[in-house]
Amino acid sequence: MAIAVRDGFEIYSLSFHYGQRHSVELDAARNIAKALGARRHLVLRVDLDRIGGSALTEGFEVPKDRPLGELGQDIPVTYVPARNTVFLALAVGWAEVLGSWDLFIGVNALDYSGYPDCRPEFIRAFERSANLGTRAGVQGQASFRIHTPLIRMSKAEIIRTGMALGVDFSLTHSCYDPVDGRRACGRCDSCLLRKKGFAEAGFPDPVSYSVHG
Amino acid sequence: MAIAVRDGFEIYSLSFHYGQRHSVELDAARNIAKALGARRHLVLRVDLDRIGGSALTEGFEVPKDRPLGELGQDIPVTYVPARNTVFLALAVGWAEVLGSWDLFIGVNALDYSGYPDCRPEFIRAFERSANLGTRAGVQGQASFRIHTPLIRMSKAEIIRTGMALGVDFSLTHSCYDPVDGRRACGRCDSCLLRKKGFAEAGFPDPVSYSVHG
Repeated sequence: MAIAVRDGFEIYSLSFHYGQRHSVELDAARNIAKALGARRHLVLRVDLDRIGGSALTEGFEVPKDRPLGELGQDIPVTYVPARNTVFLALAVGWAEVLGSWDLFIGVNALDYSGYPDCRPEFIRAFERSANLGTRAGVQGQASFRIHTPLIRMSKAEIIRTGMALGVDFSLTHSCYDPVDGRRACGRCDSCLLRKKGFAEAGFPDPVSYSVHG
Repeated sequence: MAIAVRDGFEIYSLSFHYGQRHSVELDAARNIAKALGARRHLVLRVDLDRIGGSALTEGFEVPKDRPLGELGQDIPVTYVPARNTVFLALAVGWAEVLGSWDLFIGVNALDYSGYPDCRPEFIRAFERSANLGTRAGVQGQASFRIHTPLIRMSKAEIIRTGMALGVDFSLTHSCYDPVDGRRACGRCDSCLLRKKGFAEAGFPDPVSYSVHG
């Protein structure tokens, strides 16, 4: 979002309540939207928890303490079936109503868990589908463009870029399985990748973890 | 659904409550799923009404009594932004959890209102996106296939095909703007196309209309 603001875009931000264990991220998203001056912040309910199939929405365990070398080698149980397809579909619908052509999504395909819907080939295919499946795409003078400014950055580069743009990382939340629903566990893939990013970038992580390691 | 049953598929049917004026169609869908022996029928809530931009979900009027020659020439106000993109995204998510590769959607690009997300080029692009954006598509031995058996049929052919398969059309609902929320108006695009289909097929329409014409 800070990159989009820097590039002169007016922000309409969108979050999804999909039954995720870490729905505390919705509070974080709202605070960040406010801090960065979003014109509107919309939270949509999506029934992904009724579809199931993921450790992020169902009863089974979120993996902990995986070796960093293992992350991204396979698709873990935290994968949520078709999640970014669903999120982008709703985002395109809202963008069409707003008359906006530029969508931003913070997917990353480098320091990541191997999710198929974070990869550039998926994003390009979805973008094409969105332009064929909407009035705006078919009739418009322009086309929808899905921006993925973080997709080829390392986590360290993401942290450095955010720091340079004045992002307040104390507002952010990354953990998949927060202790008591709020405090970062420090052990899930998302915490491990975040901690690695801050360490490599040479900045202290302002988020406090339930477990230090 | 009757075509999928004929072709030997086991049915998991999916409907969407998206704030449509004609949510009575959800009752019809449930009854049809039961009549055709669906293993499960799932109704998901989707917040398309919070996104707006359509006469099907917002306060503005559903067009009535349009000349048949006008239908399909432009994209009318009953277009719901990115609706089939959203529906198919959720369907692909559920299919992945079920371990199913075959999705059926009853879109039609001949006797229709000109919606971009009913056209074959959109369906093919979405299918490709779904196969790139899911674990099943990336790792699977097979690929998702989106079947659109009605896409190139006239409404009359659709009615004749359904009749030949023993479909009970009295269970079905087509109207966009039912009177008192239940009874087909007989004047919206969807009613006009349906009536034309039954007339051309030479069968009486078992649904009773609020207005006869």
